[in-house]
Amino acid sequence: MEGKGGAMARYTIGVDFGTRSGRAVLVDVSNGRELATAVYEYAHGVIDQVLPHGGPPLPPEFALQDPKDYLRTMETTIPAVLKEAGVDGAAVIGIGVDCTSCTILPTFKDGRPLCCDERFRDNPHAWVKLWRHHAAQPEATALNAVAATWPDSFLPRYGGKLSSEGLVPKVWQILNEAPEVYDAAERIIEAGDWVVRQLSGVETRNACAAGYKALWSKGKGFPAPEFFARLDPRLRHLVDEKLSGMIVPAGKRVGGLTPEWANKLGLVPGTAVAAAQIDAHAAVPATTVVEPGKMVLVMGTSVCHMVLDTQEHFVEGICGVVEDGIIPGFYGYEAGQACVGDLFAWFVENAVSGRYEREAAERGISIYALLEEKAGQLRPGESGLLALDWWNGNRSVLVDADLSGLIVGYTVLTPPEAVYRALFEGTAFGTHTIIQAFEHHGIVVDELYVCGGLPTYSPLLMQIFADVTGKPIKLAASGQTSALGAAMFAAVAAGKRIGGYNTIAEAAKRMARLDARVYVPDSGAHAVYERIYQEYRRLHDYFGRGGNDCMKRLRRLRDEVQAGIRS
Amino acid sequence: MEGKGGAMARYTIGVDFGTRSGRAVLVDVSNGRELATAVYEYAHGVIDQVLPHGGPPLPPEFALQDPKDYLRTMETTIPAVLKEAGVDGAAVIGIGVDCTSCTILPTFKDGRPLCCDERFRDNPHAWVKLWRHHAAQPEATALNAVAATWPDSFLPRYGGKLSSEGLVPKVWQILNEAPEVYDAAERIIEAGDWVVRQLSGVETRNACAAGYKALWSKGKGFPAPEFFARLDPRLRHLVDEKLSGMIVPAGKRVGGLTPEWANKLGLVPGTAVAAAQIDAHAAVPATTVVEPGKMVLVMGTSVCHMVLDTQEHFVEGICGVVEDGIIPGFYGYEAGQACVGDLFAWFVENAVSGRYEREAAERGISIYALLEEKAGQLRPGESGLLALDWWNGNRSVLVDADLSGLIVGYTVLTPPEAVYRALFEGTAFGTHTIIQAFEHHGIVVDELYVCGGLPTYSPLLMQIFADVTGKPIKLAASGQTSALGAAMFAAVAAGKRIGGYNTIAEAAKRMARLDARVYVPDSGAHAVYERIYQEYRRLHDYFGRGGNDCMKRLRRLRDEVQAGIRS
Repeated sequence: MEGKGGAMARYTIGVDFGTRSGRAVLVDVSNGRELATAVYEYAHGVIDQVLPHGGPPLPPEFALQDPKDYLRTMETTIPAVLKEAGVDGAAVIGIGVDCTSCTILPTFKDGRPLCCDERFRDNPHAWVKLWRHHAAQPEATALNAVAATWPDSFLPRYGGKLSSEGLVPKVWQILNEAPEVYDAAERIIEAGDWVVRQLSGVETRNACAAGYKALWSKGKGFPAPEFFARLDPRLRHLVDEKLSGMIVPAGKRVGGLTPEWANKLGLVPGTAVAAAQIDAHAAVPATTVVEPGKMVLVMGTSVCHMVLDTQEHFVEGICGVVEDGIIPGFYGYEAGQACVGDLFAWFVENAVSGRYEREAAERGISIYALLEEKAGQLRPGESGLLALDWWNGNRSVLVDADLSGLIVGYTVLTPPEAVYRALFEGTAFGTHTIIQAFEHHGIVVDELYVCGGLPTYSPLLMQIFADVTGKPIKLAASGQTSALGAAMFAAVAAGKRIGGYNTIAEAAKRMARLDARVYVPDSGAHAVYERIYQEYRRLHDYFGRGGNDCMKRLRRLRDEVQAGIRS
Repeated sequence: MEGKGGAMARYTIGVDFGTRSGRAVLVDVSNGRELATAVYEYAHGVIDQVLPHGGPPLPPEFALQDPKDYLRTMETTIPAVLKEAGVDGAAVIGIGVDCTSCTILPTFKDGRPLCCDERFRDNPHAWVKLWRHHAAQPEATALNAVAATWPDSFLPRYGGKLSSEGLVPKVWQILNEAPEVYDAAERIIEAGDWVVRQLSGVETRNACAAGYKALWSKGKGFPAPEFFARLDPRLRHLVDEKLSGMIVPAGKRVGGLTPEWANKLGLVPGTAVAAAQIDAHAAVPATTVVEPGKMVLVMGTSVCHMVLDTQEHFVEGICGVVEDGIIPGFYGYEAGQACVGDLFAWFVENAVSGRYEREAAERGISIYALLEEKAGQLRPGESGLLALDWWNGNRSVLVDADLSGLIVGYTVLTPPEAVYRALFEGTAFGTHTIIQAFEHHGIVVDELYVCGGLPTYSPLLMQIFADVTGKPIKLAASGQTSALGAAMFAAVAAGKRIGGYNTIAEAAKRMARLDARVYVPDSGAHAVYERIYQEYRRLHDYFGRGGNDCMKRLRRLRDEVQAGIRS
């Protein structure tokens, strides 16, 4: 297939494995144009009630997946995008994969998942544990206790505290609750790496997931066997025996596409397969960011904040700092807010009066649009309301899932849009707090770059984020930055020699674009928000740092009462 | 008119002057049976935008009334109840009046309101200032400052702080803003006393309003002229020159009905006219309460708490303690919560999702009934939510209108009914705090007696009040306890000799009844609520006693921003 200018057009495919679906996007390597997209809704979605073939109900907080859904995603979507774009598979020079994380599964040495084996398929622990499987909290708590006293601990790289979503708690839970699965598991592997292994036949561990989720660092590797033995003697050899040894940075060519998969997908055997990447992190270069000073916010149900620096700093309450974890050559920092889009959805679902719903229906607009309009007519400070945005706990900088939401300033004149705007502002104050923690440690944040679903749905939210933080906000042009980022890393894995790029910076220059809109902070609004932020911080510290632990006590009482009702 | 047993039936009429309407009830003196009720909606209602005959818009926070609406109430409703019940006016032995307070008007010596005079009718200050006229806050603030340093101050009788709703701030505002009205006013009189003067031709001041609203006490009278002179030299002779001198307790016969009014109403000249009473206070004997140990809660948009004792104690944050103020022979204590029914109405109007409204409509029940049902299915502590019920500030015990509402404990699983229930519980905690303040000063509160609109509309609210306070709750049988109470005091004014009673205790025994329902506290629920109450008190003191004045700062900022928008 020849391009107009005579040079043959080259393409890469990025495949993004999300929570409920997977998507492939076919991208023109020369300019980043997204020629076609296809989505596959997982046949088994999130498995949190019962296994697909039946059996007893799953315990609380379990969240599993079926690895075959990942294969079906590729088998369905890759041929579809080729067909839709009319592109010959021979013009595709690379495939990149990003995936939720920490999402892991136990396999045999040959990559076969234990859950696909008759002996283990009835055991929930043989299945994929999805990132949001939260049943390993006891293991996480014990892990934190040991790590806190371990000499030269890795804890500072994780903001001082590890989440139950990480690899070690999940693996440890398998050992505790299904030792036969643990023993039979010759590998425990990230889903993204597992997909790459399927495509290429080569087993690797991507540095991103290894760093952010599995306690690995480029300088120090994994914690020593003695550390794992301290957790549980049976875990002593976990790293050597069950975790993949070859750790690869983003953009690395892991191997070539196997003939079998090339045949299934309509591609050419040997096509470059790039190292996997965590979904949020893959989005960073797709928002054009490949250097320090620019914080990327992936804004959806939750918000993930990522920023690069040339040095390693230990910042309070971040999710992690990983060398080469986002963009090779830099320390990648990640922080997060657990409840953003989810918070607005909760509000709309539960706390907007019917008269507003009727008004929206009469005007033929969505309730979100109506609230956006009404909330936009309020000035900063006008409502007298302030919210602590902890409906799902606080991820950064307090790292405390037991905190809860708070609103102060209600009067009998408080309308729904004032509360809605206060929730917008509360999430912006949460991001402001995260930025200040970074800046406090000398990490520069000059601008914000946003992607994900929220920015396009709410310009007001973007302006509030700009006004609260006092920083300009730029938007990624792509609506699927994770998949685009995976396709960009695929172009790097292919390399310049065959039409790709040698570095992600080069790829970003050509393939990533920004929206024309820039949200510039208004200095008057920022001044008012600085005053409100003082109040936010005072409440943040009072409720979040032990001044008054009423949120925890109320939650404990709630749990007691609910347990009493169940029993 | 002869009764079945041969004895002539005797009746009294109670007239209740509310905020938007007045009502008369015709009561059988022998058993308290309410034979007929009639309501008159005031032609001019609450005058807060413009005077009835036009003119410029009224300033903010003005709330006026037209005294002629009170006369029209009587002219309309009293003949109506006589007619409806088929009772001859000759069988009516007394009329009693209760009224909102402090609701005052300037008049000439003969009782003619200044607002009925051509020279003054265009001046808003010539009209009735309704209880909820809040424009005299500057005067109230100055009054508090002077009172705080005055030797042997009356402030302790008012919980340490006076409200802008009282008589002195309102009178002082007239002087400041309309000195010509102040000078022309030969009397400044409570609306209830003014009505009594119309009916009887005798000018009195009821001890209830004088005590709770005008700084008078039985032992010490009014503050000295020097005190008023300290406020403003022109106020020095306010009491002597403009306030009525004869102060009368509830149940006192002020005089006989004038021939003119007897003719208008279809009654007999000379019929006993009882001293006026504040509406909430008139309700106390109508709930059967004429002795200490029993707290009466008048529950509507706000809640008024009243209890009797044989001694004078100075209780933090009460509205007032007045000897003979409620039931002659006792010290009557009053406290209050500014936002109760109003709070639930705010919630239903603003914060209940449309899907609940649809569910209520489909089931053909009100949204209140649906919320009552759903909130009733939750257990104490189950939601993890806690509210400070200060949507309208805090009346008792903090006496601070600048406080605002707060909810803590939100999660993405919080449904509307959990918030609704938390608001119920928050108001119950507010009452619990008031009771504890009384008990702390040795005033016994063994049982709660409730009346007003809320108790019948929400059994759940009643049960929560019982469970939170740990005290049984009894309900008045009458739905119009203020009017019934006025009719009971009328029977006392008439006296036993002509078929009434000599004391209000006797009248209560015969004329007041309770509903059969009693809300008994559940000990398990009470134990859980005691734990939550500890959290409530900690937040109450933190936000209400200077630990963190963020509510005030947010309000000040709001006022600044709103002023900036207006200018």
